[in-house]
Amino acid sequence: MIDLTLIGIGTGNPQHLTLQAVQALAAQDLILIPNKGAGKDDLAGLRHDICARALDGCATPPRIVEFDLPVRDEATQDYRQRVDDWHDAIAAIWWQAICANLPEGGRVGFLVWGDPSLYDSTMRIAERLKARADIRLNVIPGITSIQALTAAHAIPINEINGPFTITTGRQLRDGGWPASADTVVVMLDGACSFQSLAPEGITIWWTAYAGMENEISITGPLGEVGAQIIETRAKARAEHGWLMDIYLMRRS
Amino acid sequence: MIDLTLIGIGTGNPQHLTLQAVQALAAQDLILIPNKGAGKDDLAGLRHDICARALDGCATPPRIVEFDLPVRDEATQDYRQRVDDWHDAIAAIWWQAICANLPEGGRVGFLVWGDPSLYDSTMRIAERLKARADIRLNVIPGITSIQALTAAHAIPINEINGPFTITTGRQLRDGGWPASADTVVVMLDGACSFQSLAPEGITIWWTAYAGMENEISITGPLGEVGAQIIETRAKARAEHGWLMDIYLMRRS
Repeated sequence: MIDLTLIGIGTGNPQHLTLQAVQALAAQDLILIPNKGAGKDDLAGLRHDICARALDGCATPPRIVEFDLPVRDEATQDYRQRVDDWHDAIAAIWWQAICANLPEGGRVGFLVWGDPSLYDSTMRIAERLKARADIRLNVIPGITSIQALTAAHAIPINEINGPFTITTGRQLRDGGWPASADTVVVMLDGACSFQSLAPEGITIWWTAYAGMENEISITGPLGEVGAQIIETRAKARAEHGWLMDIYLMRRS
Repeated sequence: MIDLTLIGIGTGNPQHLTLQAVQALAAQDLILIPNKGAGKDDLAGLRHDICARALDGCATPPRIVEFDLPVRDEATQDYRQRVDDWHDAIAAIWWQAICANLPEGGRVGFLVWGDPSLYDSTMRIAERLKARADIRLNVIPGITSIQALTAAHAIPINEINGPFTITTGRQLRDGGWPASADTVVVMLDGACSFQSLAPEGITIWWTAYAGMENEISITGPLGEVGAQIIETRAKARAEHGWLMDIYLMRRS
């Protein structure tokens, strides 16, 4: 029996951890941390740092083990197939690590940026393990980059009684402004996809490294600040070696 | 100078508090807690309980003051006007309480269920105070009922790379299923508005008291579990005297 807990840890600010997440980290027998390879990002280090702070003073701290993330096979043409294969490969590595470190079962935890339910594959990988063993899956919610974005700008996400849509850069480029909502939050956008929109009447609130020390925020009419966002983004990525950003747009 | 901090406290589970929220609570000079009137709900008590736990051991705890929430004037026909007037009235009461308790300025905090950015009026009321004084507004994100819902069911909110829309019961009744998303989360729905949809091909994940001890979850095809949700909801409301619920629907 494997008790598998996905622990949302927020967007990189160790203070984003909930009391529930701190408790859950301390309750694990094993914590598995992905190692994306040198130079990819400094996020494995940040995960270790978050663990160390949260487990400070814990009488029986969990064992913390790194595992190597496989790379996606870019030879696979179909996007969904490529992602599916990749998730299968990660699940196989998880399973090896669990068998090696918890041969008699127990509690294994994974730290997930933001919230495990939101644009994250960890839950889909965890589901794959159910075919291999008796798995109980627990989810601990965490602060998302959406919330770090609206907190950074001190704005409500919705208009009064109004709907809003969360989407991805790819969807925005392919499908344009989503019907039925005047507020859109765009995630997973490596290409400043707001450029695909006619900017008239659109206000944008953009934040990089939301919730972290080096947070950068820009807001204004899209037509006026779009170029500034593109430039700031490129500069920040060059400076830090990696970048996470998110934005909200409202049309009038 | 008033430093005004809106502190997201999650959905009623004291363990939802982030470390940042605990720190922010302790850093206030004054915390204002609304009193909705006897019998309305037991949430004022829960706010006090959350404060007491978070401030346990705090050397210089903030002063905690209750204020009476005004009632909305139902004689005002227009919905938006009624809400605007109500927010004006609350802002006036906040201002009285701040002047009485912090005549020389300082830090005042408000506890907000979920996250201050999501379907909550606190930020709009806070903005009104900017006309009366030099206000610095800070927002501390908190776990939302959306996240407590997806954690309860251990489901991702989105399909891979897929968009989703957050809306209200009123919007769903008036406008039907939102265009451009196959996943919809419905909040602020006192009327089981899913009844207005043709249930074919729709799966629902419903949770009441999400994240709390008495959490109740039901999931299944809408056509099969819709009636059970309506019945369970009515029973729970009668039993507890109040109810908060939320649901996610996906159509295939």
